[in-house]
Order: sequence, then C-alpha cells, then structure tokens
Amino acid sequence: MNSFNSYNKRLKKNQSPLLLSPGPVILATPIKKSLSQDMWHHRSFLFKKALRKISSDLKILFQTKQDVLILACTGTGAMEASLSNILSPKEEVLCVSAGKFGERWKEIALAFNLKPIVIEVPWGQAVSIKEIEKHLNNKNIKALLITACETSTATEQPIKEVAKLLKNYPDILLVVDAITGLGAMELKMDKWGIDVMIAGSQKTFWLPAGLAFICLSQKAWKKNLSSKLPKYYFDLNKERQAQQKGETAFSSSVSLIRALSVSLKLLKKKGLKNLIIRTETLKKACHIFCKFLGLELFSSKPANSLTALKVFSADSIKKNLERKHGIFIAGGQGQLKNKILRIGHLGPLTNKDFIRALKALGFELVKQKPDLFTKTKIKMALKKVEDILKPS
Amino acid sequence: MNSFNSYNKRLKKNQSPLLLSPGPVILATPIKKSLSQDMWHHRSFLFKKALRKISSDLKILFQTKQDVLILACTGTGAMEASLSNILSPKEEVLCVSAGKFGERWKEIALAFNLKPIVIEVPWGQAVSIKEIEKHLNNKNIKALLITACETSTATEQPIKEVAKLLKNYPDILLVVDAITGLGAMELKMDKWGIDVMIAGSQKTFWLPAGLAFICLSQKAWKKNLSSKLPKYYFDLNKERQAQQKGETAFSSSVSLIRALSVSLKLLKKKGLKNLIIRTETLKKACHIFCKFLGLELFSSKPANSLTALKVFSADSIKKNLERKHGIFIAGGQGQLKNKILRIGHLGPLTNKDFIRALKALGFELVKQKPDLFTKTKIKMALKKVEDILKPS
Repeated sequence: MNSFNSYNKRLKKNQSPLLLSPGPVILATPIKKSLSQDMWHHRSFLFKKALRKISSDLKILFQTKQDVLILACTGTGAMEASLSNILSPKEEVLCVSAGKFGERWKEIALAFNLKPIVIEVPWGQAVSIKEIEKHLNNKNIKALLITACETSTATEQPIKEVAKLLKNYPDILLVVDAITGLGAMELKMDKWGIDVMIAGSQKTFWLPAGLAFICLSQKAWKKNLSSKLPKYYFDLNKERQAQQKGETAFSSSVSLIRALSVSLKLLKKKGLKNLIIRTETLKKACHIFCKFLGLELFSSKPANSLTALKVFSADSIKKNLERKHGIFIAGGQGQLKNKILRIGHLGPLTNKDFIRALKALGFELVKQKPDLFTKTKIKMALKKVEDILKPS
Repeated sequence: MNSFNSYNKRLKKNQSPLLLSPGPVILATPIKKSLSQDMWHHRSFLFKKALRKISSDLKILFQTKQDVLILACTGTGAMEASLSNILSPKEEVLCVSAGKFGERWKEIALAFNLKPIVIEVPWGQAVSIKEIEKHLNNKNIKALLITACETSTATEQPIKEVAKLLKNYPDILLVVDAITGLGAMELKMDKWGIDVMIAGSQKTFWLPAGLAFICLSQKAWKKNLSSKLPKYYFDLNKERQAQQKGETAFSSSVSLIRALSVSLKLLKKKGLKNLIIRTETLKKACHIFCKFLGLELFSSKPANSLTALKVFSADSIKKNLERKHGIFIAGGQGQLKNKILRIGHLGPLTNKDFIRALKALGFELVKQKPDLFTKTKIKMALKKVEDILKPS
C-alpha cells in the first residue's frame, strides 16, 4: 500500500482532492483552462455564436429535436422550473419517492400548491410498474415525477418501462429528473416519450455546479400555455425565445457556459454510447471490488453513475479518505447517514484515479476492521478491478 | 490615434475584449486563477471554511449585521426571491419604475400574483420623494420596490431619502435592487433601514455572472414567517439555515463561490470607501470627456457605476468598438435602443484601460462625424481625462 500525502500537504501544493462523489466531478484540463479565460459580454456576437453551437450539441445528449434550455441555477432550480412551467395550482401529481431526490419532487409540489400523491418506494429499490399503474386511473393526475438515477441510494429507476406504460395515458406528462442519469444511462427523450427532462452541469457534463438544463416535449410546451403556477426567473417560454436568438433571458453565466461549450466538445468526441459504457465499466469494477471483499451493495437495482455500499463507520472512513488521502467520496444522506458510502463513476476519471481511490478505501477498511480485511485481500480485489479496467 | 488590432486578431491571440459594460466586468488575474482551480466538493471541510469566511466578508460590503445569503442564480433570481420570501398573494407593492430594471419589479410582482402600484418616472430621471409620499397613506402597501442604480438609464435613485421617508411608515418594507449599485455608491443597509437588498456577482463583485446576494433585515425576516408566495429553490429560510452551517441548501456553485472568496479579499483590501471613490473618479473622467466634446449625458441624476451618453448611430459605434477595437460598451435598451451608449466604471479597470476605451470611442466619433469631432479635439479631451485620473 502506497502512502499518500496528507490533505493539507496536497493543498499547500495547490493540489485538490480527487473527487469520486456523484457530483461535482473532477475537472478536465481544457475545462479549467476555459474557466480562466477573460470575460466576454453576454450580448457579444462571440457569445451568441457559442450559445448557438451549445444549443445544437445539447440536443445530442438529450436525444431530442426539441430545444434544450440552459438555466443559471443548480439542478433543483430546474426541478422547480419543470413543475412551475407546466402545472397550475391544485393539480395532482404522482411522485415516485425512492430516496432524497424523489422526496424533493414532493417537497417542490407542496411548496407550489400542487397536490402530490406519493408512491413510497423503500430506499434502494426500484419502483414497481404495477404500483404506478394502480394510480393511473385517477383522471386528476397531470404529471408523473420520477428520478432516473436516485443519487441518495445509487438506484436506477425503470424510466423506459414507465414511459411505455404512460403511452396509454396521454394526458399524464412524464417528468424525469435525469440530473445524475443523463449521459450515464440510456435515456431517450424523444423515442421513449419523456415530456420534461432535466440535467445539471456538475455531473455527467464534467463542469462545476451552477448550470442546469431542461427540455420539454411538444406536449409539455402545449401544457405550458395553460400553466398558471407563478414563475419569472424560471419562465421557460421567455427563456426559449431568448435562447433561440443566441441569448439568455437574463444575464448569462458566461464562464460556465463557455466551459460548457468545451465540455460538450469533449463529450461529443467520446460519443454518448461510449460515455455510458465507460460509466458501466467503472460500476462493474466497483461491484467486483465490493463482492470480492464481501461488502454488500445497498441497492437492489444499482445505478451506473455511482455505487452505494454498506459499511461500518461509513462517516469515519469517508472523513479519513478526505483528510488523509485527499479523496472525496460521498456518505449516506438522511436515513442512510453513517450507514453507506457512495462512490461516483462520473467525470473524466482515469483508471489510475479509480484504482487509487479503491486502494485508499481498502487501506481504511483494513485499518477499521483488521479481522475482516487484510492487505493481501485488498490487493487481490484490486487485481480483479484492474482486470476489468483496461490500462488508461 | 493608435491603430488597434482587430477583434479577430485579438481572439486568435486568446486576448479577450476589454469590457466597459455595466457588468460583466473584466476579470482580475487572481480571480481567473481561482476559477481554474481543481474542483472541491461542496460538503468538504475546506469549502465550509471558505463559505464561513465569505459570509462574514459579505456583511462588510452590505454594511449589515444580518446574514448575507449567496444564491446560485443571476440578479433577477434574487429579485424574485426578495418578493417571494416576504409577500403573499394579492398584497400591494409600490414599484418605482424608472427604466428597464424598475419595470422588472412590476413584471415579477405581476407574475407572482401581487398587486403592483407603479410610479412611472421618466427614463433618465430620479423619482421624486413627494411622488412616493403621495402613495404611502394607502394602508395596503406592504413593500416599496426600487432600483438603487438603474442600469438602463445610468441613473441613481435617492435611496437614502426614500429610506428616511419610510421610517414614518414602519409597515412598509423597503426592497432595494442594488445589483449595479452596491460597492459603487453609498448604500447603508442597517443604518438607513433597508429591509431587503440584493446584489449580483458580475458587477461590483468583479466576478462572472452566476451568483446573487441577498440580505434581509430583522423586520423582513419577521414578514417572511407569514409569507405565502410559493418558493422552493429560492427559499431563503432554508438557505439561511444551511449557510449558517457553512453549506448551501442545494449543490453549491463551487467555482464561482471560491472565486468570490478571492474577490472579497481584493475588495476588502481596497476598502469600500476607496472602491466608491474610484468609481466616482472614473465617472468624473467620463463626464469631463463628454462635456468637452459636447456629448450630452442622458441622465439628470447620473450614477457612479456607469455613464449614458446621447450619440448619433449609437449601435454602429458600439459595434465598431467591439469588432475593430475589441472594446465592449453597452448600447441602449428598450426605448433607448440606438440612442445612447453606456460606459461602465466597474471592475478592476486601470486608468490605461479606461483611457484606451475613451480613445477608441473618440476615434469612432471622428469617423462618424468628422464635421463635429476632430482628432485634435479628442486628444484635448483625453488630456482632461488624464488630468483627473492619476497615473495607474
């Protein structure tokens, strides 16, 4: 086991921690370079040109012909926008709540005077299609709100199947939080018939947080015409009109949007299919590591974007990884606090980065439970990981 | 008159245009360096530490003891937040509308089912205190919404006097859009009794757009308790609870917030008083230049942050400055389109930058109206400017 510089030493050297959280992700050098560029004005012809290119590139990732709008906010702002732009007070919405981010759908619905009907799914599980179907004969339901990848539990929800089911209920809009999912799992907006899909910059877009993306189907735009919930900063109609002219409705977050043009270039070069395969490969490597060491996965339907594993003293391991190894992974949220660790598979991680992180995790496991884990066992587990990951 | 590299040439050299717009402003080197740093996680102890320091520094600029909250949005988001967090549907608000940003107060009020009563002030003028007073006996008015520096007309509104007047009407909250004003003009939140004050990152904070700041008085927080307008992403109560713990309620815009910690260090070093004096000095220099050349100012109560001047073919001059000289100033908005130019006095502009911009403007004026302007006259005007600005 190599020794690692302490966090403080790394910082003094201006080295930042290795991020294996499910967002934010590490920044690739061209992104960092772009962020440090001199400012442009957001009404300059240069910026307009960049924005037009971005708009067309975003459609590729969303697999859509519709406009994908950029919002200057984090993902939660786009969640709010997706409800406030298509619904009216007192309308009923069906929320799939299978973790912290599913719960957020309900919270936003309540805050905006909607009537949420909640399907409570045990954390770590995927929703059952039959359970959803039971509610759909309720003619008052105007939208179904679901999370593609529930980040708090590392669980994938069956979006394709839900979309297929909703084909029989054309009056219900399908609203998908794809903040941690888009670009890491299959999500075919137009083909499957998703009505609203949102994403955030700090996950599969390889950027810092601060931008969110939202796309509405034609059906959703039609519903927007009669929507009566209040909105101004998140008025998507206004935003669409502006972005079709190469502007944003209000001041543009120029640095992040310019960096987006760079990240989209990198992502396009890799290709959506390869990006998904890469995330899956890291997931498989992570699963092998856990399985070999007898660490139980938390989710019964594990996501590509991140893996959640049950461990003793999760928070203490997380803290040691951060402070001693300069490696940041996530812990459990809400009811899962101190019970799980969450390892992200997103961003421009190299195999070396990934192995380094698992190695450090192994090191901490040995330290915590020397009766259960040995250096030799960790080494063998890492060998399995290396077998799956081709040399980068 | 020096010749300038063309815009395209500058860009090929990775040189960006000189910004003299009233936001965004040019970025100082330490800010650019900070923006290009490796990512941190927003729940890391390092980030928490940075956020705590920022919170305390922001109070200095706002001249307040209250919490100044950071929002991941542009200024308009903070405008929305300032209404949605203190008001309830159907409540009446008095809007001072003296330009595009005053009009925005009304638009947001209407979007959120408030009842705006609008004082229409001719563009370029300051509101009369007597005119405001006329409305204040209306017991239904819950808040007065005003713009400290109306960016669309380069006009300062008499915030101190309005605040003084409102002392006699303790049930009316004073809400000040200080997006272009804070740090460039006197705005004493606590001392004057401002109840809500907002600012944006891309103006006097020397940063890219993407962050906004909001501060509520104790009276405003009290009104927040009974506020019934819907909010979730902009729920300031939730945000305050999080930021008091060194976190943000949702994902943090880490890169911009870290850059904020750098800019606050720079601004603190200069001192609020000196920052205001510097802006005033650039204003004076700009006024002298205009006066000497017989260019009329648009505003009868000119702001510190920017100067608006009436010129023929404003848009053509603006375009030439951008494309031929790499200098970006703003044109007129709304009813002022093609009628005025707006020159910003914000950001880390050196005297050399400022003179270069005025020189280029002079060059374009001579080209447009050789009968009115001569190279010699421009040189003499620039001499006056140099006399006011000490060598940087």
